[in-house]
Amino acid sequence: MLDNVRIVLVNTTHPGNIGATARAMKNMGLSRLSLVEPRCFPAEEATARSSGATDILEHAQVVASLEEAVVDCSLVIGASARQRNIPWPLLSPRQLGMQVRTECRHASADVAVVFGREDRGLTNEELHRCNYHVHIPCNPDYSSLNVAAAVQVLCYELRVAWLESQTQDEPPFGVDWDSEWADAQDMERFFAHLEQALVDIDFHDPNNPRQLMSRLRRLYLRARLDKMEVNILRGILTATQKRCKDAG
Amino acid sequence: MLDNVRIVLVNTTHPGNIGATARAMKNMGLSRLSLVEPRCFPAEEATARSSGATDILEHAQVVASLEEAVVDCSLVIGASARQRNIPWPLLSPRQLGMQVRTECRHASADVAVVFGREDRGLTNEELHRCNYHVHIPCNPDYSSLNVAAAVQVLCYELRVAWLESQTQDEPPFGVDWDSEWADAQDMERFFAHLEQALVDIDFHDPNNPRQLMSRLRRLYLRARLDKMEVNILRGILTATQKRCKDAG
Repeated sequence: MLDNVRIVLVNTTHPGNIGATARAMKNMGLSRLSLVEPRCFPAEEATARSSGATDILEHAQVVASLEEAVVDCSLVIGASARQRNIPWPLLSPRQLGMQVRTECRHASADVAVVFGREDRGLTNEELHRCNYHVHIPCNPDYSSLNVAAAVQVLCYELRVAWLESQTQDEPPFGVDWDSEWADAQDMERFFAHLEQALVDIDFHDPNNPRQLMSRLRRLYLRARLDKMEVNILRGILTATQKRCKDAG
Repeated sequence: MLDNVRIVLVNTTHPGNIGATARAMKNMGLSRLSLVEPRCFPAEEATARSSGATDILEHAQVVASLEEAVVDCSLVIGASARQRNIPWPLLSPRQLGMQVRTECRHASADVAVVFGREDRGLTNEELHRCNYHVHIPCNPDYSSLNVAAAVQVLCYELRVAWLESQTQDEPPFGVDWDSEWADAQDMERFFAHLEQALVDIDFHDPNNPRQLMSRLRRLYLRARLDKMEVNILRGILTATQKRCKDAG
């Protein structure tokens, strides 16, 4: 999917933004960059800001018009900062990801996401070449998103959509854990041990329980303990009880 | 919600990244920036790259340590590029948005999102001060996300979550909670107390710590303790220590 998408920058003024765009793309796994009449390219500053994503700059296609940049694309989406006189179908960045994912179920799909000039974006004529517009939600009092930052956000959503298409499966806490989860029996044994230890240290009176054990249960059940954590906590309880017994 | 969130940059080397961070924040409607020992700030390049978000730079808080930056925060989330030796609960950027949205149902909530150094991110010690980690999905062959680009992506997700909160409503853990959340200072005091008590009962040797305190930090930070729970746990520790002292 990500190989089917090209990022198109129209009339970019600052070569640093081209470099930062290449870096943002490569981080998110995109590789195809088209530049419509950049003011200055290739440029040292573009290379510097690309921070190692020079392969993307080297393979960038430089063309004379937006028309040329998107000629073979089945889906063209233009980044738009503001609503234009004629409302156009408008996607959120998240919807962009879903739309591109759907499009790229055809292996041969070609998709362009188009970004305009630093100071005034895309012209109406350019926006009207697009199937859809995409708008990144911004602070209405300060909406001058840097072009490479806008590329970063949309490429991020494209990557997330691509990852979701790979699998809808995710592990607990988002990572593979380093110990098995405790089961209900482990937890009940732990709570019995905890309650006994609290009695031993004169902290808890089962005849006047208040909500103590309920609150502790809520805490540890909420945390989802793993087996190693239960062992550590029970080790602490055993050590506590041993010291109590020594105290007589 | 967005006013409750501070962005914390730790030991930033390039002032341009501080400026680009301010711009990204302001675009997404965030305003609170904390800088932990920046190499060079204030700086002309920061102002230039902020592109008009100078108010954020002017009000940025410069502090000497991460501890100081997050001392009053109830929720601390650290940006992490790679898996560490002990896995920590890991959020996707989208889950970060949802988590912060939940947290900020309390008007007084203070949330920190912490970003590390350009070249090597956050240290393990810094990461172990966090309730959760957040990872921006990246191309595994090229994952050197620029720090301001990472701020841009996470602030974007925060803004999206905030926009969604305008129309939808959901309480923390699905219910209104019965106690305020503990803040980072409460938690650090608890961990110091816990470590001392574990030494007192001969369970823990600070000269041979293994991963004991890291595992206990992970457990209690993951559970998100409220203030009453911290009081209960510290009461247990105090009772334990008293019995140890009685034992002589």
